[in-house]
Amino acid sequence: MSLLVIGTVAFDEVETPFASSGRIIGGAATYVSLAASYFLKSGIHLVSVVGDDFPESGIEHFHRRGISTEGLQIKAGEKSFFWRGRYRADMNSRDTLETQLNVLADFNPVLPESAKECDFLMLGNLMPSLQRSVLQQMNRRPKLVVLDTMNFWMDSAWDDLIDTLTMVDVLTINDEEARQLSGEFSLVKAARKILSMGPRYLVIKKGENGALLFHQNEIFYAPALPLEEVFDPTGAGDSFAGGFIGFLASQSEINFETMKQAVIYGSAIASFCVEKFGIERVINLEPQELSDRIRQFVRLVDFSIQPGN
Amino acid sequence: MSLLVIGTVAFDEVETPFASSGRIIGGAATYVSLAASYFLKSGIHLVSVVGDDFPESGIEHFHRRGISTEGLQIKAGEKSFFWRGRYRADMNSRDTLETQLNVLADFNPVLPESAKECDFLMLGNLMPSLQRSVLQQMNRRPKLVVLDTMNFWMDSAWDDLIDTLTMVDVLTINDEEARQLSGEFSLVKAARKILSMGPRYLVIKKGENGALLFHQNEIFYAPALPLEEVFDPTGAGDSFAGGFIGFLASQSEINFETMKQAVIYGSAIASFCVEKFGIERVINLEPQELSDRIRQFVRLVDFSIQPGN
Repeated sequence: MSLLVIGTVAFDEVETPFASSGRIIGGAATYVSLAASYFLKSGIHLVSVVGDDFPESGIEHFHRRGISTEGLQIKAGEKSFFWRGRYRADMNSRDTLETQLNVLADFNPVLPESAKECDFLMLGNLMPSLQRSVLQQMNRRPKLVVLDTMNFWMDSAWDDLIDTLTMVDVLTINDEEARQLSGEFSLVKAARKILSMGPRYLVIKKGENGALLFHQNEIFYAPALPLEEVFDPTGAGDSFAGGFIGFLASQSEINFETMKQAVIYGSAIASFCVEKFGIERVINLEPQELSDRIRQFVRLVDFSIQPGN
Repeated sequence: MSLLVIGTVAFDEVETPFASSGRIIGGAATYVSLAASYFLKSGIHLVSVVGDDFPESGIEHFHRRGISTEGLQIKAGEKSFFWRGRYRADMNSRDTLETQLNVLADFNPVLPESAKECDFLMLGNLMPSLQRSVLQQMNRRPKLVVLDTMNFWMDSAWDDLIDTLTMVDVLTINDEEARQLSGEFSLVKAARKILSMGPRYLVIKKGENGALLFHQNEIFYAPALPLEEVFDPTGAGDSFAGGFIGFLASQSEINFETMKQAVIYGSAIASFCVEKFGIERVINLEPQELSDRIRQFVRLVDFSIQPGN
């Protein structure tokens, strides 16, 4: 199966209570496509935009993982999207110190012909109207469309977001965003409302508290792996999304069972991502490391009870 | 098996964003012993103290659930412990508006002879020196001792708490308390440190985010059931502890497997507790309701993955 990933490719500068990253490669589509590449050896198409300040070595990371960058526009004389942020002591909350939109300000995604045929589509966090325009450029409706978004678009592009939501199969957001989108505090009520807005599946990401998958009246709770050390949480959510959709694209069927497995694989990739700065960990995973970690997830929630009547 | 429960029996007054309880029956030992009674039809001994303002109807709740109140001191002319608090909009954090120690100020737990033989001991949240004095009154070391405590004692009775910790098998605290007790932010590191301070098992309660069980190098993550509505969180932690130790006391073996099951049973009882004010829900559970809810927990985390190599 083939997968189209749209989203940012960018520079980040991350400060944690323990270290500073300097300028490193980041961006939602970067993490999504790299994470997905552990499930799809080929057929991943990246569509995004950078300036000519973006290094060739950065683009090589994609090629080494079999990701096509035919749809990655490189704008001469312009600068790449840049984000600088600082994590607080709890390593969960962060403050944005600087955002330079640069090339992203007038990004107009244009799909190469090869990408228009993709079976799976990951609409990474971007302006909802751009996400929609990508979906509309496809030659046919993909088998599965996953949308990621954030509170910023709820505040600034509500109508566009609501419209785009009607066109997707899966929405991934965090708990605060689910509450804002639904106007409900209870996540169970929030999920019911959001599932009536378009998506058939909803994933609510809760960081170190795991993720919830909702579908019809079913709920699945995937824990996050309790970690010795969280070095840099940047990209964890996008790595999750990449592992999630990459795994699904490698499966012959999409149903609640494979969705649950996809949430576990996404959580596993995210648990690696936070071990080092930026993409350092997600460009270098060994298959053995990944399967060992999946085993840890299996053990983590494993119990056996035979309830009576 | 028999179970001794020590802790507060009290009056609470609870305000939530949705309703006010008025003066109702509460207290850690109240919730613990009622929750445990779903696993032990007899042999539960409650040791606590109330004033003569505590109603006979309150004490009948215990008797109806087969709980012995021989060790419940009733102090003539004195008033029962009283706590008044208000939950914030998130229903997770709360502010204490009033605390009247009353009879608790010079509580001196005295075990009736029958209670000194108990196989299981739940040391509910109380001054650590009182918890220790109960343990020392036992005729022999119980098969399992579970200690609950809180940040207040870490601030005000550190040395006593550390000393008491060396005498118990299981410690149950919340995530913030685990961090305070260990001086470590990572819960994995915190757990390692706390397990070196005495307890062989550690349960870290994370409210709506479930509970973690630590033992040697093993970790078990029990989710909380995502709820439509949380009406009153008061007593959830104590109901958890009661279900946990009550289940263990009904088992022939104590090991990591039965501990995991106990965490699930504790979580199930806690999920009922929050559905109504005070003890209303935990005095009226039907066996069928409980087993249905256990099935929900089983489904909630159920997935099947065969990781490769």
